[in-house]
Amino acid sequence: MGESFGSWTMGLDAQVMPYVDCANIACGFHAGDPGIMRKTVALAVASQVRIGAHPAYPDLAGFGRRSMACSAEEIRDLLHYQIGALDGICRTQGTRVAYVKPHGALYNDMMAEPLKLRAVLEAVAAYDRQLPLMLMATADNSAAQALGDEYGVPLWFEAFADRAYDASGHLLSRRLPGAVHHDPALIVEQALRLARGEALSASDGSALLLKADTLCVHGDNDSSIAAVRQIRQALDAQAVP
Amino acid sequence: MGESFGSWTMGLDAQVMPYVDCANIACGFHAGDPGIMRKTVALAVASQVRIGAHPAYPDLAGFGRRSMACSAEEIRDLLHYQIGALDGICRTQGTRVAYVKPHGALYNDMMAEPLKLRAVLEAVAAYDRQLPLMLMATADNSAAQALGDEYGVPLWFEAFADRAYDASGHLLSRRLPGAVHHDPALIVEQALRLARGEALSASDGSALLLKADTLCVHGDNDSSIAAVRQIRQALDAQAVP
Amino acid sequence: MGESFGSWTMGLDAQVMPYVDCANIACGFHAGDPGIMRKTVALAVASQVRIGAHPAYPDLAGFGRRSMACSAEEIRDLLHYQIGALDGICRTQGTRVAYVKPHGALYNDMMAEPLKLRAVLEAVAAYDRQLPLMLMATADNSAAQALGDEYGVPLWFEAFADRAYDASGHLLSRRLPGAVHHDPALIVEQALRLARGEALSASDGSALLLKADTLCVHGDNDSSIAAVRQIRQALDAQAVP
Amino acid sequence: MGESFGSWTMGLDAQVMPYVDCANIACGFHAGDPGIMRKTVALAVASQVRIGAHPAYPDLAGFGRRSMACSAEEIRDLLHYQIGALDGICRTQGTRVAYVKPHGALYNDMMAEPLKLRAVLEAVAAYDRQLPLMLMATADNSAAQALGDEYGVPLWFEAFADRAYDASGHLLSRRLPGAVHHDPALIVEQALRLARGEALSASDGSALLLKADTLCVHGDNDSSIAAVRQIRQALDAQAVP
Repeated sequence: MGESFGSWTMGLDAQVMPYVDCANIACGFHAGDPGIMRKTVALAVASQVRIGAHPAYPDLAGFGRRSMACSAEEIRDLLHYQIGALDGICRTQGTRVAYVKPHGALYNDMMAEPLKLRAVLEAVAAYDRQLPLMLMATADNSAAQALGDEYGVPLWFEAFADRAYDASGHLLSRRLPGAVHHDPALIVEQALRLARGEALSASDGSALLLKADTLCVHGDNDSSIAAVRQIRQALDAQAVP
Repeated sequence: MGESFGSWTMGLDAQVMPYVDCANIACGFHAGDPGIMRKTVALAVASQVRIGAHPAYPDLAGFGRRSMACSAEEIRDLLHYQIGALDGICRTQGTRVAYVKPHGALYNDMMAEPLKLRAVLEAVAAYDRQLPLMLMATADNSAAQALGDEYGVPLWFEAFADRAYDASGHLLSRRLPGAVHHDPALIVEQALRLARGEALSASDGSALLLKADTLCVHGDNDSSIAAVRQIRQALDAQAVP
Repeated sequence: MGESFGSWTMGLDAQVMPYVDCANIACGFHAGDPGIMRKTVALAVASQVRIGAHPAYPDLAGFGRRSMACSAEEIRDLLHYQIGALDGICRTQGTRVAYVKPHGALYNDMMAEPLKLRAVLEAVAAYDRQLPLMLMATADNSAAQALGDEYGVPLWFEAFADRAYDASGHLLSRRLPGAVHHDPALIVEQALRLARGEALSASDGSALLLKADTLCVHGDNDSSIAAVRQIRQALDAQAVP
Repeated sequence: MGESFGSWTMGLDAQVMPYVDCANIACGFHAGDPGIMRKTVALAVASQVRIGAHPAYPDLAGFGRRSMACSAEEIRDLLHYQIGALDGICRTQGTRVAYVKPHGALYNDMMAEPLKLRAVLEAVAAYDRQLPLMLMATADNSAAQALGDEYGVPLWFEAFADRAYDASGHLLSRRLPGAVHHDPALIVEQALRLARGEALSASDGSALLLKADTLCVHGDNDSSIAAVRQIRQALDAQAVP
């Protein structure tokens, strides 16, 4: 959320906020500016939603979706800057950053390159060892969990209700057809399967079991919002925590 | 300090740091980047120097020296973002931002326009009511002090050892000859007069008495560094606090 | 036009382009990026629309709407950079920049401060003395015309079909109610009056005669588009050039 | 050259300019701003030096040295924007961009990835088919030459007088010791060998013959300047063109 910038609007934050538990808020490097960050934090506070720092590579024109050859030291520094900036804004609204979830290419790079995951973990631990890192649930989370334990950082594994997976539990590239679900019914079904710990159907038709702690839905299209509301109702009805 | 950026170096921070009590550190909007901020904070910690956030208008190309028509709300937001970012980096180095001093055109605008001073005071109070604001000592600090009291923000009035003043206690514009002192002897003398509470000689020759709590010396030329060292020795020798 | 940026969309360029003669295209400093500029130029070429460079202060977060204290030299340099960048992109699409119209605060400052208008005129003349400058028609264009003649720059005076004017022929501030017309009928009527050389009704009810060469309609809301189409039809029907 | 930015200075352009034939001028994405570009172009004009556009990835904080995952389309667009911007500034100084040499990571990526070299060639051809592209001379230039011929773009192969090579004719990474020559005598000797078409000694001691059209010396340290002057004198003395 908070992925507007200056005079440009993106996302439907006010409509989505009442139905989520956690909001990843952009920190100004791929989207968001100080005013938008403040408004988004205030929205989250009003809906009692936990705030996640959503730091990114410094690439506004590319929306943080282009991988950049940043060193581990550069990654640590840009995480501290962005988490701190959002935390400063949270402080003025009577709240705090509750977890960290890297954005876009930084998120993908962290999942693909252990050295980058180490850099992120080191950064989070140096900022606040209590702060959880949100990362992608895959078919096997053990390697990531071992690294999280090494740095003493709690990990929250997230699964995506509105994205298709390949058989190894990785997200299908946005460039491929069917990568993003637009049918609310499909999104709700995937959400419920994930919440119940049931296997999904991967893009090759095989069964894929993801161990996930949280569910992510992107907040930037109308079908997502419809889906978020229905997911919330379905989860509440079934008393899935 | 910390006014380098990326591959560009400015200032002689490592040489100056041992001789000062307070370091204003750029927060990325007019200068500084996350890595430079971290290195400068580490340098300050090593010399047990208090760290001031030095936030600015978002104008890297203009080094924050061009006034921008920002609203009060925009000023509050950009202060919170920058103070928070530096505070986040401080946190990873075991320290905290100890005061706030706006930079360049934002500093000048704050001194010239009460609405902008109010915006800055409101921002500092909302971030942390204990945090002092550093602003310019003039011949009469009473109006600023009244505003500081209204927002409950402690004020530190600073005088400049290396800048010439006009008769009303304002800095001579950098565009005028003689605006910046380059002679270390002159800088040291002005520093000692300020520290002892003695009147300075204004640019028109009149006597100017400034009530100042702190002394500022710019850290970007060789004569400043020579001067800073001599000021420190002279103050220590005379036991001026 | 071309006021999208990166992943953010603004304006309805594809719908508006077929109905206009001239398109002011953002040059990357307040909006627009190289890809968006290329797409917008291609759109203009396809509709045989003249391309105007729409340069601005370097302020993406503020959309170029915040005045900045730039010197005359800085204004000349940033105009040359932006006009050149757009002209380079035009060149790859088989066309050229046909005129210059500063954007936002730079446009307002140029109208309010003769030194800034001189800087803009000098910049345009140095780039290409044939290139017209578009500026605001007021009740009395003679001072601007004299300056244009001094620099040998052709001037195109523009009037706004979708903005209200005060009695002196200046635009009502966007902060005031009624500053922007949203009713297509009102926009079309104002356009026809301007095209026929008839007086408008200023915000205080007085008659205001503007001598204008071109009509400007903003391309970022649905009513504008409806209006643009109707204005085009009405002008064509009446054979107003 | 022109790699200063805003208030930050880099390079010794005024000292180097009289001794070179070609100057690569930064275009604002990794370094340079409109004012610095103008001053550097004026300097080149005064010394009758050919001006090369030196475009880069959009990464000011990283000085264009961090590879970014830009698409071929993004590379074409950002080249056109930057070449155009510099060409616009050249135009106001009575000159034109005479060739293109990508900077930093974009240069390295272009040499390593044929798809990126194609994107650069396509961009240069679309801008102006007469404009040469400067790229790195290696032990075997034939693949690059074939691509240049395909797009009809003249190629200028450059060799570096102040950098060490490995046996395959690639530059030694700046991270390795000995990658950059600082001894003027060594730089001059390498320059003369290259100018005479003699083999260099690669980092593993083997003989390396580079077919180069131009010689590059970096303009940012004192030894380079001393070397440039000596190279110019040595070449003039030997009448090597």
